[in-house]
Amino acid sequence: MNATSPEAPPGNRRKPDPDSRRREICDAAIELLAEDGVKGLSHLKVDRRLALPDGTTSFYFRTRSALVHALAQRVAERDLSELTAATEFQANAAPGPSGLARLVMAAATGEPFARTKARYELMLQANRDPDLAAVVHSNSDRFLGLIRDFVERMNPQGAAIPRMVLDQQAYVLTQLISGIMLAFTAGDGTITDAGELDRIMAAVVAGIAGAH
Amino acid sequence: MNATSPEAPPGNRRKPDPDSRRREICDAAIELLAEDGVKGLSHLKVDRRLALPDGTTSFYFRTRSALVHALAQRVAERDLSELTAATEFQANAAPGPSGLARLVMAAATGEPFARTKARYELMLQANRDPDLAAVVHSNSDRFLGLIRDFVERMNPQGAAIPRMVLDQQAYVLTQLISGIMLAFTAGDGTITDAGELDRIMAAVVAGIAGAH
Repeated sequence: MNATSPEAPPGNRRKPDPDSRRREICDAAIELLAEDGVKGLSHLKVDRRLALPDGTTSFYFRTRSALVHALAQRVAERDLSELTAATEFQANAAPGPSGLARLVMAAATGEPFARTKARYELMLQANRDPDLAAVVHSNSDRFLGLIRDFVERMNPQGAAIPRMVLDQQAYVLTQLISGIMLAFTAGDGTITDAGELDRIMAAVVAGIAGAH
Repeated sequence: MNATSPEAPPGNRRKPDPDSRRREICDAAIELLAEDGVKGLSHLKVDRRLALPDGTTSFYFRTRSALVHALAQRVAERDLSELTAATEFQANAAPGPSGLARLVMAAATGEPFARTKARYELMLQANRDPDLAAVVHSNSDRFLGLIRDFVERMNPQGAAIPRMVLDQQAYVLTQLISGIMLAFTAGDGTITDAGELDRIMAAVVAGIAGAH
């Protein structure tokens, strides 16, 4: 591999901002992973997608492993910013569907859809890559944490829900959402709006509270 | 590619049973897909895993696509035989956890675990392959059908559950199980026994009935 940036020949001081370039490369890699799976991802394909000189992606991420890990970090970073926005939306007690339900429904369209598909590719890939598993698991834990906050607000005001019940509500809701989002990637369109998803989530949470 | 079977040189009449050989090849391909993903699957790797002469898998399945489709059919065939067994178990009203809960828990260990992982690899792959999508969707529909039968028995005896509610119960339970089984592949061990899963499923079904 060539240690000189294809974008920055010696003496040329007008380098692009490396952090923006890394983000741009990761976003293109997410799209490729979503479209063609692990087989469809290569340094050269990222270069071509971004119309960058051949070798640019290799300059920023030397190995395939470095590229995949950076891509997973980028997914986590964008997920977190979305989750934070959804939580704030919720805290403002805005009318209409919850921030969580909106977020899940939005995951089936546009840019978030590529990220949804990439997230499942990474989950399966994590079975074979302990470092990647660490990133994926920390992202899952963050999601579970958001769901737990959400569930706490769903239970009736003043009800003293035992921690064990709250944990089960959060776990079940997390796996339900995971299954629904995976079904989206396979073209499922059973749930059509965030309000319907909110009613389902409320029914599930109430059902588990009622069983204890 | 060579049109002569590496196992059956002209004049040799002691051919192995082709159907058993195809099944054996598909089972090995399922293991490879589970272990190493789509990248880890090749005709030659199947030959080597089964200690068959190089070219045997290519003789039975000419193309990569033929091998992947046959593998998906084999997953569906084994799933169906398991589902049927689970349903019969249920119909006999055996004591202890339900056949469905046992089946889900069993999917996290041993031979069924390879099939679980392979099923998710195939689901993601189906996004890029309409023929494969047809096999995967028909398998999903069969699973949804079993869940619907299961849910019908879970609702209180004599209760007239509207079709719409039954459909929602079955859909939610299906996606919940899909999410839980996917979590298993990522090493999750939150649910430890079939009895616990049965209580969760009953709570979810009751919660949805209660919301209508």
